[in-house]
Amino acid sequence: MSDIWSLGIQRLLARVNSFHQPGSSKSKCKSFLCHTEHIGWIREDAANQLRRYSNVFIEHSDRFTLADHLNTYESRSEAVAKVLNDMRARDCLKTLRGWRDELYLVKSTYNRSPLFEIERSAASIFGIRKYGSHLNGYVIDDDGTWRMWIGKRSATKQTFPGMYDNLAAGGLSHNLTPTECMIKECEEEAQIPKALATEKLKAVGAISYCYEDDDGIHPEGEFLYDIQLPTSFTPNNADSEMEKFYLWTIPEVKQAIIEDNFKPNCAVAVLDFLIRHSFITPEQESNYFDILSQIHMPGH
Amino acid sequence: MSDIWSLGIQRLLARVNSFHQPGSSKSKCKSFLCHTEHIGWIREDAANQLRRYSNVFIEHSDRFTLADHLNTYESRSEAVAKVLNDMRARDCLKTLRGWRDELYLVKSTYNRSPLFEIERSAASIFGIRKYGSHLNGYVIDDDGTWRMWIGKRSATKQTFPGMYDNLAAGGLSHNLTPTECMIKECEEEAQIPKALATEKLKAVGAISYCYEDDDGIHPEGEFLYDIQLPTSFTPNNADSEMEKFYLWTIPEVKQAIIEDNFKPNCAVAVLDFLIRHSFITPEQESNYFDILSQIHMPGH
Repeated sequence: MSDIWSLGIQRLLARVNSFHQPGSSKSKCKSFLCHTEHIGWIREDAANQLRRYSNVFIEHSDRFTLADHLNTYESRSEAVAKVLNDMRARDCLKTLRGWRDELYLVKSTYNRSPLFEIERSAASIFGIRKYGSHLNGYVIDDDGTWRMWIGKRSATKQTFPGMYDNLAAGGLSHNLTPTECMIKECEEEAQIPKALATEKLKAVGAISYCYEDDDGIHPEGEFLYDIQLPTSFTPNNADSEMEKFYLWTIPEVKQAIIEDNFKPNCAVAVLDFLIRHSFITPEQESNYFDILSQIHMPGH
Repeated sequence: MSDIWSLGIQRLLARVNSFHQPGSSKSKCKSFLCHTEHIGWIREDAANQLRRYSNVFIEHSDRFTLADHLNTYESRSEAVAKVLNDMRARDCLKTLRGWRDELYLVKSTYNRSPLFEIERSAASIFGIRKYGSHLNGYVIDDDGTWRMWIGKRSATKQTFPGMYDNLAAGGLSHNLTPTECMIKECEEEAQIPKALATEKLKAVGAISYCYEDDDGIHPEGEFLYDIQLPTSFTPNNADSEMEKFYLWTIPEVKQAIIEDNFKPNCAVAVLDFLIRHSFITPEQESNYFDILSQIHMPGH
């Protein structure tokens, strides 16, 4: 692999893990706990706002906790919702301008019971982890050549318009498992019939990273799936989220994921695919070993 | 996956990551740096000894560093060797009883230049990371059933005698790349001919973990390889390190890796294989997401 490619990958990983980089807000953040369970990170801009609601959020030297009297799912959800509605009305944090009216279940780890629910756009205020499912789709030609299906997001999409993407991907909500979500996105984003997806989808791992931006802190986790599609199949977008699909050779894909017009977390999902299928080796890529840790960062 | 299996996997991961568990020595350890590069961890038992050599090891409030005058590879290697020889003569640290007379190159990350060299058995005194290459070998029967080749270590091996192991594995030394090491171990441990290994070996990732024991702190990294072998091939040990090889079904392998007689880091290499090949899914295994981080722990 060229030095330029190596540097491009390091730049990509520094972007998706910007919270873990030197000079990030991490060292100045406070943990956010519900009882003893770590559920997120609170940055100074969020802390300044939360201090106004000291009946709900208790500040300690190194952490924020929810007030002791909020000892049920319902009471926590209600108290936090009141705060968020007030903050939204005061227009004090940018992320709340993207209010989704969609509730997100807050858990300390993926497999734990939900502790409370919050408006999805507020998760980044508290540095709460969000999850999704991402699909790498590929074909193997008769001569053994592998090619990957790469999506291009529609120009009207709210986030990352016009950027390159995986074949299908979507955020997890509480009513679907990772595989159910993946099957649904296969249909909606690429018109892969449910029967084909159910037969061919393979769960192959997960990636984990954490970035920060104007909206807050974003720990994210993506469950990864591979699908080998028949060469006769052509994906087609059903929900107008994707503008077009491209069938690229591996060298084309490798080049694309270090460019600025590839959605960063989708580029990381592709990188994981390239490593698992031996299109990148320890001898070609000097950062091979460290890349594996950088794309599987622990939660906290 | 059953709750018993889930708990077995959590127990396995707690063993290979014992340094990262609550109650470990981690919070009381000091970092070990060469200039500004973090290269390891020093536990109190090691610190007590190193304090006797304050011309070589400088103690600060939160870290040990090498003395400023040790500013070349040679001077660092020589000064540390003198200390280790003295400590060995005094028989003050157990790990030095396993003196190997083999030099190991100390680097802050796998791809950096070596900073100095030390006797291999002393790496755990300083919590310096060691690397290896591990191979998961499998066959696919005519009916599509996968089976894995599992080795059983010989009863006379110095470490983990009689325990189950991967098809081949070995520690990296400075004169071989991960893939070269893997090809060599294929021949020595399983009599996989070099031509077959070179053609069929696939680099598929790496695992990373850190345990501690009486010998010290052991951050380890293993480069992982898969090989699909012809059903006609039977591995055979050439260097008397393996007693026998078994060809097990996936359910047999799954059960084996949670048992105490499977070498823990080899069990983790198998776990990674089972995840990558979709023999474990997020729906079957509730800790799926966290397992992926636990087997790819960052260095420091």
